Amino acid sequence: MTAKGYGTKHSFTDLKPVQFEREEAGAHDVEIEVLFCGVCHSDIHQVKNEWSNTVYPCVPGHEIVGRVRKVGAHVKAHAVGDLVGVGCMIDSCRTCDPCRGGEENYCESPNSWLATYNGPMVPAKEADGQNIYGRDNTFGGYSDVVVVNEDFVLAIPAGLAPEAAAPILCAGVTTWSPLKEWGVKAGDKVGVLGFGGLGHMAAKLAKALGAEVTVFTRDKEKLEEAQRLGVTGVLEDDDKALEKLANSFDFILSTVPEKHDVNPFVELLKRDSTLCVVGALEPLKPIDNQALAFHRKRVAGSLIGSLAETREVLAFCAEHGIAPDIEIIPIQQINEAYKKVEKADVRFRYVIDMASLKDEKSDFGSI
Amino acid sequence: MTAKGYGTKHSFTDLKPVQFEREEAGAHDVEIEVLFCGVCHSDIHQVKNEWSNTVYPCVPGHEIVGRVRKVGAHVKAHAVGDLVGVGCMIDSCRTCDPCRGGEENYCESPNSWLATYNGPMVPAKEADGQNIYGRDNTFGGYSDVVVVNEDFVLAIPAGLAPEAAAPILCAGVTTWSPLKEWGVKAGDKVGVLGFGGLGHMAAKLAKALGAEVTVFTRDKEKLEEAQRLGVTGVLEDDDKALEKLANSFDFILSTVPEKHDVNPFVELLKRDSTLCVVGALEPLKPIDNQALAFHRKRVAGSLIGSLAETREVLAFCAEHGIAPDIEIIPIQQINEAYKKVEKADVRFRYVIDMASLKDEKSDFGSI
Repeated sequence: MTAKGYGTKHSFTDLKPVQFEREEAGAHDVEIEVLFCGVCHSDIHQVKNEWSNTVYPCVPGHEIVGRVRKVGAHVKAHAVGDLVGVGCMIDSCRTCDPCRGGEENYCESPNSWLATYNGPMVPAKEADGQNIYGRDNTFGGYSDVVVVNEDFVLAIPAGLAPEAAAPILCAGVTTWSPLKEWGVKAGDKVGVLGFGGLGHMAAKLAKALGAEVTVFTRDKEKLEEAQRLGVTGVLEDDDKALEKLANSFDFILSTVPEKHDVNPFVELLKRDSTLCVVGALEPLKPIDNQALAFHRKRVAGSLIGSLAETREVLAFCAEHGIAPDIEIIPIQQINEAYKKVEKADVRFRYVIDMASLKDEKSDFGSI
Repeated sequence: MTAKGYGTKHSFTDLKPVQFEREEAGAHDVEIEVLFCGVCHSDIHQVKNEWSNTVYPCVPGHEIVGRVRKVGAHVKAHAVGDLVGVGCMIDSCRTCDPCRGGEENYCESPNSWLATYNGPMVPAKEADGQNIYGRDNTFGGYSDVVVVNEDFVLAIPAGLAPEAAAPILCAGVTTWSPLKEWGVKAGDKVGVLGFGGLGHMAAKLAKALGAEVTVFTRDKEKLEEAQRLGVTGVLEDDDKALEKLANSFDFILSTVPEKHDVNPFVELLKRDSTLCVVGALEPLKPIDNQALAFHRKRVAGSLIGSLAETREVLAFCAEHGIAPDIEIIPIQQINEAYKKVEKADVRFRYVIDMASLKDEKSDFGSI
């Protein structure tokens, strides 16, 4: 099947209209017409090879909401016409401990889980040549159609607008998972470092869990946004404000999507509490073990979320009327949008209206 | 009361015989004739001002075992003639949450706890001028006598030799506390990074808890020591061996007493498991958040242990016949011993026989 979308063959070029082949839906697969796809900061890291692991050609997009157009003979969970979503994963080994325990996002197979785009998380060359998925690359949701195994297709609950549901599939579950793992509950004081796509979802989710939320941002203008969301906003470099908050937080989530210094925020944790980093995948600036040791504090990482957690956060958002704040763009504005995301100049998540692909005036080049 | 001991007025001089004044025992204090004092790597850091917080003059020593010589009028817990110990703390605020919860080592008063030497953990100048202990400096166990509030004096259980009990008061409890906090139990796979004073106690304690213990050392000769202790020894830089151990440990304790790279050992943790740093108080080399995030791993710090934990580990050692491997030295060899500790050339803890002070031939200078 020929798919159309936006992609690139190189780290140094913009995304362009492309066409490429997708496999037809097998007996257990679902063919989905993509309606909306969120723009994640990871997409930019990946397109530009900033994690040094991009497989080209690259068609990004892992916050996909669409309509089921066709189902394989054995598909039971989904029917033609259903509104469904696909997040960061489209398969996992299903046999390792985490997979059997419902934590596919920590799949311990040689290739880890199969990412929605950019192929298996651990490519064959880093897995002693093994390739349990038989695929070297995968193409994401910046396209008109995706074909996904039914187990990794998620029903979108009634009450969630499709365009607003899209960012929940990555930004939502990536912040939800650690909030649940570290047991955030009503009355807890929760800090959110970074106030972008992930950060604003973290703030909304933690607030709906009953926590008292403070967001830390480097952008003065976003202090008003915090107020609008009903949470406290503090400038990251306001040392006096930070000093007053020392040893007061039950949990802090860092959503900053690049190397950063967590030490000033470790200081804000209560004894025995955790700062969890979900935004950055690179090495952190050196952590001061004195600050950890003196109050037995912890620094942890967390990676997206499981299928079960994704269903849970979708249901939670539907129930509590939580939706990300989005700006809808046509795919033709994607390169401009990337520049704005890099400058943190978006409130708070771009979502591509994939119907715009039909208006494309340039040729769809082969990939 | 005039006390004699070994101390220094500067970071650049050796320890020398000194005499200094100690307060007489008050109604709640115990006067202890020091029999033995362990030599902790912290003593060296402190004497040389390597943590930039040393208050001079400095008389180190916080692994003290001695005989009660005198008790204040209201002392109930100890009697003249008792064999007792004093560890890293000689007081705490007793009113903050951690103190009331029996975790004095995390005292949250403005001055934190009162260290056995080098005064309050947080000096007045860093506590907005506050000084709840009314003392700017304290003098440790490299001396003939100490005077300590009865609550911070620990009974040494029958069955523990006094010289062997000394290192349990710091090296023992500092490793015991995190083993208990992170729930190490029979059958767990425990890694110990660094195989010195703390490391060898961690290995013995974890083994007695039923864990399968691996120690990581940079010293080939210590592999035999590991064998003698009945634990597995692996060279820190044996990449092939480390590779085979990936994702296999339930808990790893780093006892390396200086800045080091924990990343190769984070790789060895199982999903959701913790590497706890007790040896170093300085910033760690940058932590790779990718390694943390991909298996939701955690890095934590832990600081010595509480009074209750100290009693617990003393009892555990007595019950299981665990004692540190020590080399007894006269105080006159302390400067040479420091050099050997810095080269990790000790099996595994120096303990000073304080009776040697009586043989001192040099004058005891004023401090």
